[in-house]
This record gives sequence, structure tokens and C-alpha cells, in this order.
Amino acid sequence: MTGTGLRLLRREVLYQGKVFDLVVERVVLPSGREAVREVARHPGGAVVVALFDDGTVLLVEQLRYPLGERVVELPAGKLDPGETPAEAAARELEEETGYRAGRFTPLLSFYTTPGFCDEHLHLFLATDLEALDGGPRREEAESSMTLRRLRLQEALELVDQGRIKDAKTIIGLMVASRKMPAL
Amino acid sequence: MTGTGLRLLRREVLYQGKVFDLVVERVVLPSGREAVREVARHPGGAVVVALFDDGTVLLVEQLRYPLGERVVELPAGKLDPGETPAEAAARELEEETGYRAGRFTPLLSFYTTPGFCDEHLHLFLATDLEALDGGPRREEAESSMTLRRLRLQEALELVDQGRIKDAKTIIGLMVASRKMPAL
Repeated sequence: MTGTGLRLLRREVLYQGKVFDLVVERVVLPSGREAVREVARHPGGAVVVALFDDGTVLLVEQLRYPLGERVVELPAGKLDPGETPAEAAARELEEETGYRAGRFTPLLSFYTTPGFCDEHLHLFLATDLEALDGGPRREEAESSMTLRRLRLQEALELVDQGRIKDAKTIIGLMVASRKMPAL
Repeated sequence: MTGTGLRLLRREVLYQGKVFDLVVERVVLPSGREAVREVARHPGGAVVVALFDDGTVLLVEQLRYPLGERVVELPAGKLDPGETPAEAAARELEEETGYRAGRFTPLLSFYTTPGFCDEHLHLFLATDLEALDGGPRREEAESSMTLRRLRLQEALELVDQGRIKDAKTIIGLMVASRKMPAL
């Protein structure tokens, strides 16, 4: 609670999930009143803009259960226990796309939903890409995933057209474009 | 479940919260195997880039409980029951900043966290701004909120420096800058 001005009375973990835990905390506000704060606790994750020398980037399209539709996204995933963001970026890129990067450059870190979740995403630029012999190694939950390779500017047009709608992907594409305006 | 290839067996609402509900669904995968899907169900929300004629924008800074730190964000909030995104944008702008906009232009809609939550945010450009006599009308949970007014380019520099870290805010500032490169 350091720095928040709030005093924690009680913490209850209502649900331990595969992706996040639901934690409900009873606190005392600076006014002295008691209040409840509900938080989705998330381990954080990594997002990868995998950029080839020809100016194309890798995107994955998959069925997203919460939305009931296929969503186009940058390769990404949550941190495994003990894993650094850079390690997760490398692992997710290989698993989801079948490509390995010679170089990872941190671009930006951001919060997806600060109002109710502590998820912190770390965005990397991946370059010096080479295809792995075995191809992608996807989990069963990713069995509907397909790989797409588009020019960065084409992908940004899909954002403008509302066909790329995932926040982390919009940020990744726009940040990459700002860093490399020639592409 | 339409279009997902999944068959719903059972839905359980584990928690009904102020911001989101936690729903756990047991489904049958196309392979015939049963699986559990945990989803944070969110009503969706609106985000506002309030742009003055002098090229400045409004930002609010507030303590975000899940992160335990103050976060700089565009004015935003979730949809009240029956409210359209444009109505929520107008209401949140007035409540959080004390400004009313003569014109709202939809810019983009996006998903914050498609992996575990159905939150859908609607981004608006607000122009023809006028200060309301009464100032902001904030809720108690927003009592720590302070208002900032920065040039759009200054705000983008804070993104590059990692001092603006909220995803919807990064998207709003970058989209506004792409639409109005002269600012």
C-alpha cells in the first residue's frame, strides 16, 4: 500500500486462474471510510514486433474466446514464473511463429488496463530473423492460430480501417513506425 | 459460441464486481476435449482526446490501485447501463475535467486485453471545448485526480520517455498525431 494513502484491512483471493487471479481487498481510504477494491492480478507479458529486412512484420490471427471472434495480434504471451520479459519475448516468438530473432531491442512498456488489472506488457523489436526448421510449437489453445506477414504500412492501414483492433498490436505497430519512419 | 467452434456446457458467474464480472465457462473443444475458459466480462468504455485550438490536450493523473502508483491517462471511463460510447465520452470528459466539447469525432475502437477480457474501448476526438462553471464533478474514487494540459507533442515525448504508460492513452495520443501531423 506504500504511497497509496490506503490501509489494507483484508485480502481475499477469490479465484486462481490460468491467466490471472481475482483478488478482492478491503481498505481504509484517507477519509477513514472503508472500501472494496477488486483487482485482476496478472504476471505481465511480452509483445514482439518481428521486423524483416524487407519491411514486413509477423502477425498471428487466432480465435479469442472472450470476444468470440478471430483477432489479429502481434506475437505475445504472459511471463512464465521466473522468466524475464526478454526471455518471454524470445520464447513466444518461436512458439507462435516458428522464427528466432538474433536481436531483441526493448521499445516500450505499458499497462493494458490500470483501472482493474496490474498487467504490464513489455514491447520488443525483434530483428535478424531466421525460420526454425520445426516451425511453430503452439499450445492446444493456440491450435486455431494462423501466421500472417505484412508490410508495416499495410498493417497500419488495417489499424486505420478498424481491422486490427488489439491494443498492444496497435501500440507496437505505431511505435515501430515512429522509430523507423522510412518503412 | 457462434463461430467459435466451441460448445458451452456450463457458465458460472464467480464474482459480480463494480468494474467487471468474473465468468468461468466449461466448453467442449473441436477435438472433443473439455476445457475451462475464464473471462473478465466488462461493459466497455470510452476514451477522449480533448484537443484545444492551441494544440494542447487534457490528461488526468490519478492513483491507480492495482498498480499502487499515479498514472497519467486520457479522460475515460466505462459505459453506464444503456449508455452509448459517445454519451459516455461526453459524460466522462465533463466529470473528470470540467470541460464540455461541442463536437465528438469517433477515431478508433479497440480491445484492451483480448486474451482474458472482453473490454472494448471507443476512442473519440473532442473539439470546440469550453470550461464548465462548476469545474469537474469527480467520484470519491477519483478524489486523487489532477488535471494536466500539455501540447500533443509534449505528451508524445512523455510516451517515448516511458512516463505515460497507459495503453489507451498511448493509442489516443498516437492516433491523434497521425490524423493531425501538423500539431
